[in-house]
Amino acid sequence: MRVVITGATGFLGQKLVRKLCEKKTLAGADGSQQAISDLVLFDVVESPKPEAGGIAIEVMTGDMTEAATLGALFAKPADSVFHLAAVVSSQAEADYELGMRVNFDGTRGLLDACRKQGNMPRFVMPASVAVMGGDMPDVIQDDTAPTPTNSYGTEKAMCELLINDCSRRKFVDGRVVRLPTITVRPGKPNLAASSFASGVIREPMQGDTTVVPVPKDTELWVLSPRGAIDTLIHTHELDATKLGTSRIITPMGLTVTVGEMVEAMRRVAGDEPVNRISWKEDPAIMNIVCGWPGRWASTRAKTLGYKADDSIDAIIQAFIDDDMVKS
Amino acid sequence: MRVVITGATGFLGQKLVRKLCEKKTLAGADGSQQAISDLVLFDVVESPKPEAGGIAIEVMTGDMTEAATLGALFAKPADSVFHLAAVVSSQAEADYELGMRVNFDGTRGLLDACRKQGNMPRFVMPASVAVMGGDMPDVIQDDTAPTPTNSYGTEKAMCELLINDCSRRKFVDGRVVRLPTITVRPGKPNLAASSFASGVIREPMQGDTTVVPVPKDTELWVLSPRGAIDTLIHTHELDATKLGTSRIITPMGLTVTVGEMVEAMRRVAGDEPVNRISWKEDPAIMNIVCGWPGRWASTRAKTLGYKADDSIDAIIQAFIDDDMVKS
Repeated sequence: MRVVITGATGFLGQKLVRKLCEKKTLAGADGSQQAISDLVLFDVVESPKPEAGGIAIEVMTGDMTEAATLGALFAKPADSVFHLAAVVSSQAEADYELGMRVNFDGTRGLLDACRKQGNMPRFVMPASVAVMGGDMPDVIQDDTAPTPTNSYGTEKAMCELLINDCSRRKFVDGRVVRLPTITVRPGKPNLAASSFASGVIREPMQGDTTVVPVPKDTELWVLSPRGAIDTLIHTHELDATKLGTSRIITPMGLTVTVGEMVEAMRRVAGDEPVNRISWKEDPAIMNIVCGWPGRWASTRAKTLGYKADDSIDAIIQAFIDDDMVKS
Repeated sequence: MRVVITGATGFLGQKLVRKLCEKKTLAGADGSQQAISDLVLFDVVESPKPEAGGIAIEVMTGDMTEAATLGALFAKPADSVFHLAAVVSSQAEADYELGMRVNFDGTRGLLDACRKQGNMPRFVMPASVAVMGGDMPDVIQDDTAPTPTNSYGTEKAMCELLINDCSRRKFVDGRVVRLPTITVRPGKPNLAASSFASGVIREPMQGDTTVVPVPKDTELWVLSPRGAIDTLIHTHELDATKLGTSRIITPMGLTVTVGEMVEAMRRVAGDEPVNRISWKEDPAIMNIVCGWPGRWASTRAKTLGYKADDSIDAIIQAFIDDDMVKS
């Protein structure tokens, strides 16, 4: 089977590529495991080629909102698409047209290309906690209406609806999964409001100082990078008949406070990294982050076999094992 | 002030035009009532010109998904837009690309045109009960997630999100109102699955026979044409500061069974019209209509001053007064 990954150079994209090269199979149209013959790594910049053990790797670059690029990408029919490409929240907020073009039109273009193939490929897109905001219940239920308070969340929520309809119409076998905040991301701090959610662990563990811009009791709903990859693949593998009329899935995550994350780091790695943390509230960041929902019922996800990480301690240990830069 | 009405030749469009010509004012940017100087009646076909009592009427035709048409429509800045134009549910279901182009791209184009004006016009769009379907709670709450099971409902639900975001970004002062099933519509039966909701009253009252394709205990959530016009104007007039972070409003409607509608007609007009009704269940129509929600909590609408009709009897009397063709 031919598997297309958009946003393949991103940190989740690269981890997904490595995981699929190890796993070597995915559920096909009839639900049975089929060998991955071709893996297409698409992004605006060129993806490195992984060790692929017999899988043919194609690296493609371009702007997926251009018809010629989509034509090339789907010149051979895809059996599965993992659509990870997106403009991040701060970019989509700064440039409305860019966000709409990439996050909404880009997704719509991929769905149209899949429709024209006529083979109803599986189509997996991550959505986000950003579909919620503003006036919300204390615990987000599976049937709570999206209330995005940023353009990124709006674009993702519109894509959720469109993927659901394209699945009902049998253009694709679509699945959307609302990923929790991913921690601990490898790499450097960035300008995302949620940067601290990884930085509070990553920087001290790697020997650097960090300033946390929110109160210790700020609740986050989190998943490790390992958990995110497992969640994406589990979403792809689900039997469509178990999804009923909604292809929009809230998966499992852990609700933790930032203070609990720090205490977990103390249990795993002692006082030394904890002493590299200072706390200084930043109203601009609090204004965004403290509006995210920390508690999700995930009622359906439990029956669909989704799994959260065992504990925040396990998330920190996974970072040490998988991604930490050891000096 | 300059007011643009799209879909102006439709039955609601024509009633709205007449009402605005009588009312002569609408809330302006500062909330105070301002004289309507220009009323622009836009549709794919030419609208008749109403008696306008001093208001300048412009009739424009074209395809609102074309840039040149939008350019002409917004050559002078609009202060308010009532966006009623849409491809109906059966058409949108039969032709996916047409539905997306008119119902979604058309709305997006209008919002873009308003954004480029820079004056944050009020922008009112009706949505529909069709944003709900499939697996739903018994009573739809204001924060129940849309679960459309047709493309029309999907397109309207995507527009709801987009209008909300464009309002948050201050491109427009947008308001979406989910109109109940409108009964009694004037005119002839049509191919809409909901045609019977008007036909069960209209045909017998006008001396014709009719066949009702659903059981007597089928629940509908209804509003009269008068109520729909009042609801659209009330939505326009609302103080934006009362809307919080959501511009998506479920208004007030009446929950009635088809059997109760018939008994109301007996109270208003006697046995004679009732005797023109026969009942024959049509599984194809039941499959669609019996999936619509009949009960909506409308919690927020009560605090925002929305009103349903007093009774189904009053709805029938309004039909007799306003629209019934007397032989």
